[in-house]
Amino acid sequence: MKFMDKDFLLKNETARKIYHNHAAKMPIVDYHCHIDPKEIYEDRMFDNITQIWLGGDHYKWRLIRSNGIPEEEITGPADAKTKFFRFASMLPKAIGNPMYHWTHLELKAYFGYEGVLSADTAEEVWNLCNKKLAEKDMSVRSIIEKSNVKMIGTIDDPIDSLQWHKKIKEEGGCSAMVLPSYRPDKAVNIEKAGFTDYIGKLSTAAGMAINSAADVKAALTDRLDYFCSLGCRATDHGLDYVVYSPADEATVEAIFAKAMAGATVTQEEADIYKTDILLHLGREYAKRGIVMQLHYGAQRNTNTNLFEKLGPDTGFDCISTKTCGEAITGFLNALNKDGLLPKTVLYSLNPQDNEMLGTILGCFQGSEVAGKIQHGSAWWFNDNKSGMEQQMKSLANLSLLGNFIGMLTDSRSFLSYTRHEYFRRILCNLIGEWVENGEYPNDEKLLGQLVEDICYNNAARYFGIE
Amino acid sequence: MKFMDKDFLLKNETARKIYHNHAAKMPIVDYHCHIDPKEIYEDRMFDNITQIWLGGDHYKWRLIRSNGIPEEEITGPADAKTKFFRFASMLPKAIGNPMYHWTHLELKAYFGYEGVLSADTAEEVWNLCNKKLAEKDMSVRSIIEKSNVKMIGTIDDPIDSLQWHKKIKEEGGCSAMVLPSYRPDKAVNIEKAGFTDYIGKLSTAAGMAINSAADVKAALTDRLDYFCSLGCRATDHGLDYVVYSPADEATVEAIFAKAMAGATVTQEEADIYKTDILLHLGREYAKRGIVMQLHYGAQRNTNTNLFEKLGPDTGFDCISTKTCGEAITGFLNALNKDGLLPKTVLYSLNPQDNEMLGTILGCFQGSEVAGKIQHGSAWWFNDNKSGMEQQMKSLANLSLLGNFIGMLTDSRSFLSYTRHEYFRRILCNLIGEWVENGEYPNDEKLLGQLVEDICYNNAARYFGIE
Amino acid sequence: MKFMDKDFLLKNETARKIYHNHAAKMPIVDYHCHIDPKEIYEDRMFDNITQIWLGGDHYKWRLIRSNGIPEEEITGPADAKTKFFRFASMLPKAIGNPMYHWTHLELKAYFGYEGVLSADTAEEVWNLCNKKLAEKDMSVRSIIEKSNVKMIGTIDDPIDSLQWHKKIKEEGGCSAMVLPSYRPDKAVNIEKAGFTDYIGKLSTAAGMAINSAADVKAALTDRLDYFCSLGCRATDHGLDYVVYSPADEATVEAIFAKAMAGATVTQEEADIYKTDILLHLGREYAKRGIVMQLHYGAQRNTNTNLFEKLGPDTGFDCISTKTCGEAITGFLNALNKDGLLPKTVLYSLNPQDNEMLGTILGCFQGSEVAGKIQHGSAWWFNDNKSGMEQQMKSLANLSLLGNFIGMLTDSRSFLSYTRHEYFRRILCNLIGEWVENGEYPNDEKLLGQLVEDICYNNAARYFGIE
Repeated sequence: MKFMDKDFLLKNETARKIYHNHAAKMPIVDYHCHIDPKEIYEDRMFDNITQIWLGGDHYKWRLIRSNGIPEEEITGPADAKTKFFRFASMLPKAIGNPMYHWTHLELKAYFGYEGVLSADTAEEVWNLCNKKLAEKDMSVRSIIEKSNVKMIGTIDDPIDSLQWHKKIKEEGGCSAMVLPSYRPDKAVNIEKAGFTDYIGKLSTAAGMAINSAADVKAALTDRLDYFCSLGCRATDHGLDYVVYSPADEATVEAIFAKAMAGATVTQEEADIYKTDILLHLGREYAKRGIVMQLHYGAQRNTNTNLFEKLGPDTGFDCISTKTCGEAITGFLNALNKDGLLPKTVLYSLNPQDNEMLGTILGCFQGSEVAGKIQHGSAWWFNDNKSGMEQQMKSLANLSLLGNFIGMLTDSRSFLSYTRHEYFRRILCNLIGEWVENGEYPNDEKLLGQLVEDICYNNAARYFGIE
Repeated sequence: MKFMDKDFLLKNETARKIYHNHAAKMPIVDYHCHIDPKEIYEDRMFDNITQIWLGGDHYKWRLIRSNGIPEEEITGPADAKTKFFRFASMLPKAIGNPMYHWTHLELKAYFGYEGVLSADTAEEVWNLCNKKLAEKDMSVRSIIEKSNVKMIGTIDDPIDSLQWHKKIKEEGGCSAMVLPSYRPDKAVNIEKAGFTDYIGKLSTAAGMAINSAADVKAALTDRLDYFCSLGCRATDHGLDYVVYSPADEATVEAIFAKAMAGATVTQEEADIYKTDILLHLGREYAKRGIVMQLHYGAQRNTNTNLFEKLGPDTGFDCISTKTCGEAITGFLNALNKDGLLPKTVLYSLNPQDNEMLGTILGCFQGSEVAGKIQHGSAWWFNDNKSGMEQQMKSLANLSLLGNFIGMLTDSRSFLSYTRHEYFRRILCNLIGEWVENGEYPNDEKLLGQLVEDICYNNAARYFGIE
Repeated sequence: MKFMDKDFLLKNETARKIYHNHAAKMPIVDYHCHIDPKEIYEDRMFDNITQIWLGGDHYKWRLIRSNGIPEEEITGPADAKTKFFRFASMLPKAIGNPMYHWTHLELKAYFGYEGVLSADTAEEVWNLCNKKLAEKDMSVRSIIEKSNVKMIGTIDDPIDSLQWHKKIKEEGGCSAMVLPSYRPDKAVNIEKAGFTDYIGKLSTAAGMAINSAADVKAALTDRLDYFCSLGCRATDHGLDYVVYSPADEATVEAIFAKAMAGATVTQEEADIYKTDILLHLGREYAKRGIVMQLHYGAQRNTNTNLFEKLGPDTGFDCISTKTCGEAITGFLNALNKDGLLPKTVLYSLNPQDNEMLGTILGCFQGSEVAGKIQHGSAWWFNDNKSGMEQQMKSLANLSLLGNFIGMLTDSRSFLSYTRHEYFRRILCNLIGEWVENGEYPNDEKLLGQLVEDICYNNAARYFGIE
């Protein structure tokens, strides 16, 4: 097979047929990403390929670091061209890495480049991309439109004014719906530095005094309503591990008071407070019919030297192997007992949890929607061919792949929509293999429906954007 | 390849040859299942396909729930036909799920149906199956006979009278040996509700007073002898996790007395009591030459609402990721030190334990029988193509696949014998791939022997039914 | 494909091209093995195939045990020929096991035998091998030379006089560099039997009194310098799990004093002492530019009966599933904060840690060398086709496969160099598949470089032997 041609990753006839006739045509629901709505509102343009590619992408930084390049030439003061050349020179060693494919998919889709990026071609690609980026159809909104994106779910803090979402909504001009997602981690992480300050900001945002955990919950509910007024369909929780340590109100309030007084709370106390807040939020999500995303399994900021220099989300996190299966079922069960378990998507950063998660789903389904409890798409470090195949095989073995809500980019870049293409090719290839192997009928009507559902329809229905 | 034709899952010539010439011809030793011996004795007939398929099968219930169907139409009051239609309509979404294959293997083998079950064909299949089920050759014994089953190992409580096993043995008429397996979980689970009541029943069954842990052991030994008198070859233990907390007799007795007095025992205390009972039983098994099966790694009854409505084993269990490797080796070593380690089969519900288990085997083998310590077949949530392939690859990498005792159904249904066919196809395909890839000589005599051993001979020898 | 012919494991054209044109030609850096330098110095010859194959190879012993053979005929008094026959008779059952391939690769490479070993051919192979072993070109040095080995890194205790290394260096005559590796486990394992005795020996070796943990560190540094004077490039640590429990000097000294007084230290105390020693050593390694290898995840000596008879490293270890991700990052971070993190290779015996380790690498890379932090080659129980593929896929997904230092034998036998061939075939097949699948350009210059780097150049550079 030729290098990344039109049939890239599609190893058999069925795969090619269902990809080209069905998957490739579907719009994108990018229900979880980290792009900045301000850049959509302002329809930002980019100066050069380093800015759009290497400005904030810790995936790329990690790989360049792994090639023995000093930090100065990665996130430091080196000029844009040097940084790009360091990236290009590293790339041939990234055989088997999704970055190799993402890079070439993006070069092809947005810059029309069909060659291979390396030290040899870096100059050519640098010039080509920068020239192209100066053209009007490479503005943020143009990229979104040409990528056939129907919905963008950004990740936002409850205290955010959502001014850019508001303006986008009021003034129009973006072909995709741009909806906020509610991520209240800072109000949950009572044991982390900055908690008391954050509570002050939450108080301001909600326009109410916060003197108790009960007040925190009221303020969060107020902000949730505000988010919903701007179309919020999903929430997100980034947890070290899922907690379930229920306690009575007095205990929770005592822990909150202790933290607000500046004392250090123990891990056990933090777990109790978190459980209480998360149970409250889960119920509120259920009442409003919005989706609860639970992400866990990262160990963060492991490199003190570089954390102090560069801050969080700069490429110094890793997979945690802590397990919390009993907390997950305990937490979901507690919500379910009250009849207030929201639609839920479970994601672990540790791929060894795939099978455990796949079996938890089936314990808490409901009749509100097909596939109410979802095993989230292969996430972050698992966002690669084998990671996606493993997640989908596990999901297919243990639940109904046909109800899967599919891919998200989780990206900070506007060029990442090709990750949906990557996912769709892998999905179609997997299904194609099963069909060619006699494991499923070779019926294009049936297969087309399945694939279109997983690529778009299921997510559109699940997030209510139809 | 055509959908599920005669060469289903057999991707190469060697696989096809060894499957059709060897694997397919071997009888079945179904050494671990949950069917009711009463139904064998009475040679039960079934009213309709819903009764035999959806009457007690929580695998199917989970999938239907995952499709957003209300419980009323799954385990509730809805009529049999509606329930069947809900199942049939869900099925196309189960692409990649073993249920898709089991269903069609059973439709073909027992009902002669060669089509594809879906909403479109549900009426046709409903009528076909119900008509067929009314025929005499679809009685329980007829199904067993036509499935070429030589032995059925049921799972039974030590207090069971085994009246149906006795009658089957006395009156004959079943082509398979129907042997009880001894599963004393209720005498082991000191921390669970109902323990003291159960001890009362055990006392009655054994015809002796039980006033101490020593009495429990004596009573269990008595019942074990009774089981052996009816041909018992295997025992089974369903453990949350394997325990090994040895303590002196006085400590064990104090814990037992505490529990019998109605007090709550701690987890540590429960582990001590369990260790003591299990060590006793392991020794007794060794003395009698019968097999100890240890199953662990499930988290049970996670959904309180539905547990209260439907009870246990209704589809609300999931995989636990608790690890207990040191307890497993500690427990096996303690028995081995006394020269009383029985033949043992280790099963974890968490597939991530495959490699750990695969390496434990080699530490405790013995010269009583080749493959004395076994890594059990991919179980329950792992009973699918990738689960079986992973278990067999791990076993082959770490021990001798040639000594594997192979498949069991673990099923509550008489139509599940096709799971042996499914397993055999996967086994032959795996071996065929190795051979075609030059990793093993293409010598049919050698390969045929290997495959026949794994499909039947090893289990027949291991369980002593030849 | 024919059984293990010249294209063994090379399933496609690209794989065959890059293997035969590039991988097969590269010399071997066997940077981690357990062979005895005395045998190199003395250029030992072997009496028979049992001596060289079954004399100390617990991999083989485990498989023979798994076939129900009594210990007498494995490690016991049975004669050499009987033992060989037991091995040969077991072998056909080892389908899918790396032993099956290692055995036949060795028979072919060193004895010119192209057949299949089994009970049927045992006599023929026994005679052939023994005849061949009597020839001069089967001496240890001849085997090393014909295997194209450029460097051998043995594993040595800090108290070792390294007399054989010295003599080999002084007298020449071995085509490979034979370098000691520093493995100070006995000075680290404060909780294990024999610790105080060992400290006495360390005192003698270093020529200084040891009255404190500070003295232990000084003595270890002294020995490290001695090792470096003889060309040591790497160290090795075999840990049950990685520890990171920093404490102040007084606490460490108190724990050391307690242990030296003969008292039992707790696990927490042991972890503190170990952390202190390991941090010291890590810094000293960094100062000297040598490599720190961290191996963890084994549970050792699980079978008391046979441990008492045969001692350690006789085939009674298994994989431990204990996780220690936070300790790994804590430990590496502590060294890194001081700017004294050495080149490090991380190995877990539990393959479920692959992805966690793969993500830790990227957090601690440095500009001293490309690929400063490495995910070590699939080790021990993972040293098989699927284990190697999984490690390399994980590494490729999460870091730069192009910087991988590749294979080691970890072996006690001089015939194990074919394991490098086995690895190289698997590597080339993996890369070939990617290329044929359009995932990487089909550019032999690029591919040849990648493969030559992973087979030899990266390790040569990393261990500084060019």
